[in-house]
Amino acid sequence: MNHPFIQALQQIYPAERLLTRDVQLLPYESDGLTAFQTKPGAVALPVDEDEIISTVRLCHQMEVPFVARGSGTSLSGGSLPIADGLIIGLNRMNRIKRIDPRGRIAVVEPGVINLHITHAVEPYGLYYAPDPSSQSICTIGGNIAFNSGGAHCLKYGMTSNHVLGMKVVLADGTVTQFGSESLDGVGIGPDLVGLFVGSEGLFGIALEITLRLMPAPQLYRTVLAAYDNLGRAGDAVSMVVASGLLPGAMEIMDRLSIKAAEAAVAAGYPPDAEALLIVELEGEALQVEAEFAQLQGVIEESGAFEVRVAQSEEERARIWKGRKSAFSAVGRLSPDFIVQDGVVPRSRLGEALQEIDAIKSKYGLDVANVFHAGDGNLHPLILYDGREAGALERAEALAGEILAMCVDLGGSITGEHGIGMEKRDYMPAMFSDQELEIMMALRRAIDPKEIANRGKMFPGVEAPALQQHGLHPLEKQGVISRE
Amino acid sequence: MNHPFIQALQQIYPAERLLTRDVQLLPYESDGLTAFQTKPGAVALPVDEDEIISTVRLCHQMEVPFVARGSGTSLSGGSLPIADGLIIGLNRMNRIKRIDPRGRIAVVEPGVINLHITHAVEPYGLYYAPDPSSQSICTIGGNIAFNSGGAHCLKYGMTSNHVLGMKVVLADGTVTQFGSESLDGVGIGPDLVGLFVGSEGLFGIALEITLRLMPAPQLYRTVLAAYDNLGRAGDAVSMVVASGLLPGAMEIMDRLSIKAAEAAVAAGYPPDAEALLIVELEGEALQVEAEFAQLQGVIEESGAFEVRVAQSEEERARIWKGRKSAFSAVGRLSPDFIVQDGVVPRSRLGEALQEIDAIKSKYGLDVANVFHAGDGNLHPLILYDGREAGALERAEALAGEILAMCVDLGGSITGEHGIGMEKRDYMPAMFSDQELEIMMALRRAIDPKEIANRGKMFPGVEAPALQQHGLHPLEKQGVISRE
Repeated sequence: MNHPFIQALQQIYPAERLLTRDVQLLPYESDGLTAFQTKPGAVALPVDEDEIISTVRLCHQMEVPFVARGSGTSLSGGSLPIADGLIIGLNRMNRIKRIDPRGRIAVVEPGVINLHITHAVEPYGLYYAPDPSSQSICTIGGNIAFNSGGAHCLKYGMTSNHVLGMKVVLADGTVTQFGSESLDGVGIGPDLVGLFVGSEGLFGIALEITLRLMPAPQLYRTVLAAYDNLGRAGDAVSMVVASGLLPGAMEIMDRLSIKAAEAAVAAGYPPDAEALLIVELEGEALQVEAEFAQLQGVIEESGAFEVRVAQSEEERARIWKGRKSAFSAVGRLSPDFIVQDGVVPRSRLGEALQEIDAIKSKYGLDVANVFHAGDGNLHPLILYDGREAGALERAEALAGEILAMCVDLGGSITGEHGIGMEKRDYMPAMFSDQELEIMMALRRAIDPKEIANRGKMFPGVEAPALQQHGLHPLEKQGVISRE
Repeated sequence: MNHPFIQALQQIYPAERLLTRDVQLLPYESDGLTAFQTKPGAVALPVDEDEIISTVRLCHQMEVPFVARGSGTSLSGGSLPIADGLIIGLNRMNRIKRIDPRGRIAVVEPGVINLHITHAVEPYGLYYAPDPSSQSICTIGGNIAFNSGGAHCLKYGMTSNHVLGMKVVLADGTVTQFGSESLDGVGIGPDLVGLFVGSEGLFGIALEITLRLMPAPQLYRTVLAAYDNLGRAGDAVSMVVASGLLPGAMEIMDRLSIKAAEAAVAAGYPPDAEALLIVELEGEALQVEAEFAQLQGVIEESGAFEVRVAQSEEERARIWKGRKSAFSAVGRLSPDFIVQDGVVPRSRLGEALQEIDAIKSKYGLDVANVFHAGDGNLHPLILYDGREAGALERAEALAGEILAMCVDLGGSITGEHGIGMEKRDYMPAMFSDQELEIMMALRRAIDPKEIANRGKMFPGVEAPALQQHGLHPLEKQGVISRE
């Protein structure tokens, strides 16, 4: 890394918070998308806003690209370093600065862990709704970058629905406030909070975030229904939706993911189920009971061969433990796997599942399906053995076909994991040149030097990490091409 | 207007859809903010997308500013013409192109009237949720420009929560698609739908909009509670919120607006009420009944001296008729009035009402208060007699003080009517120079020639209409200043 830049950083950071030695940089070479690695030039670990602001201004001035990083759980390589760029590690920016129970807001720093917010506001009968599976480790800053969802985002929406305001430092060093503490405050002019949330770190860094809190549900009713056929579970979802019920969560696991979860955490799922549907109602007690009566009727008619209702918080936790551990549990079935993330219109779930079945047969690979059925967000887990020559490439090609199918069915190449490094080159399959040009123009309006998370999200930008993988699956299939 | 431009328009439009004569232009000189008038250079009335696109490209090429206009109901002067600019009147673009009851979406043109969508999808048990008071006349294009709300936006959010995707023509003539038909599709990258919704026509024109439909509520429960004191009604709102209930609507009217509504539509409100609270529950029948039981307990404890529950759809309609006619009904009490629109944090409603009381005494003017209490959105109606010298200026100064108070209390200068022409110069009271600069940079990234609705939203831009009114109230008070 260039010396004047490091020297300038040394004016901001004491030695123990400025990492430059190879052994120190190693843990930052990768994130949740472990197939990609890049060594950063340095890692700075700020402890307050001023340090972040000074750092961003320095990067802007010296034209050094930076990546803001929380816990590095991105599954799309969103926090992958830029070679010779700076990582700004935000884990020490983890204070909950203010809780206003009456106004139902919390003001937090970007490095606060998602679940810690709920823990902090529990005494007031409140909680923070978006719940990515990684919520016990991922940070709010990362949730904002990727507009993270979670199993319980069906009823109350993704991160963007829960961020009221933010103090940010933009890539050019401008410090400003977006939004406010009021649900209505964002109603003026272009929605800058909405622009920032989900922008994958391309505009700058959130310094302080005002989050909306929700009253903790008085009551949960969690139903586990077992089916002898995946399609039937999918149909059950359509039936629940058609009934007008809006559950807090509605999840499906297929045979392979059930098997994995069972092996990992002994969730006690019905052993011979081909598919499990988890439906959870939540809210005010009387209301939930009324909904539950209705839900039972729907599930009865849906052809489940076994229906269980959690009778205690313990039973509920056990049902969820299986579901939430499914991703990592798949590691027990296969030495390697790819977690995919795509969306199909909810009404076409059945078709999508059949397609995945056909595609996996073609490749001779196993695919475990876990998905947020209520909003059509699929998470196929593609199993492969990285020790076999060509296995990764086959798995990636399979993943690519699934994404192409999602687009064909009118869905999307990502529901909640983002584009990051992984899906940059799939963007043209989803967006027109004009749309991409508009996004890039907006980005340049805020970050003319393109120093914030350079190389992510947009196709066709030089990025050494990408070249490790050569042609992308969609490219090999001729679905997209790079000039 | 310059001749080559008119000649070029004549290549696109037949004579009966290209208005250029003074008498034809007269109806377009003003919108719902009647205190401002400007004569446009011409009015074009396209009937299809191609005409709109050709017109925008022509404007871009010849650098002629344009204003897209629906029914002209903007209360902030958002559709006020630009002198010598073009009005693109979209009322003939009023087709509902597709209804997908299963996917719960409708694809419509921008000139479709809000309420017509609900009428069209009623047979499928669906409705379009956002309901501005003007919903029987205002168009979806205008709703998008201003991110319109309405009495029933408390539970399901404003327009931005109901637009899934849009085909748009940007100010430079680029035609593109934002968003998709899926609730999740907008999760990728910067939220371009969110950027466009609420941008007050500064980025371009929506050509085709995909709207989210909701299942029509099975049951409404509408409660009218009368109080002998406005503060008590405000406290009742806090109690409902604290109980965890989320009603579809929660509205307050004060004595003066009750009197006006009574005189206009004989709503049959309790005659000696100082304040009325309308709370409406809506949704699935069993659920609403459970909520209703809870709500009754809360209202009983809130100190209402009379509580009525609508026993039929007719009684419900009568309650709402009074509320929805309140704005125009005030015309019976006063020759002139200003409709204001501001937001305070819901927890500070009581303070805000006391402040308004104090401010109005100072000016010796009457103020009727009607507001969306659930989200802190105030609509003070300031009564004055325009025939008295200086009365308009006093009313405007009073309005300015109310807005300054909203900002002081941590709220906003507009909840749903937008900035338009009316509140441009209040923007610096709400946003920092940096924020305004960012908004303007984003605008220029999309519309470098600033031809789309030029002169609106941002302060300090030349605009002849504004000069009719001289100094703005906040300027007179020294709260803001223009260089």
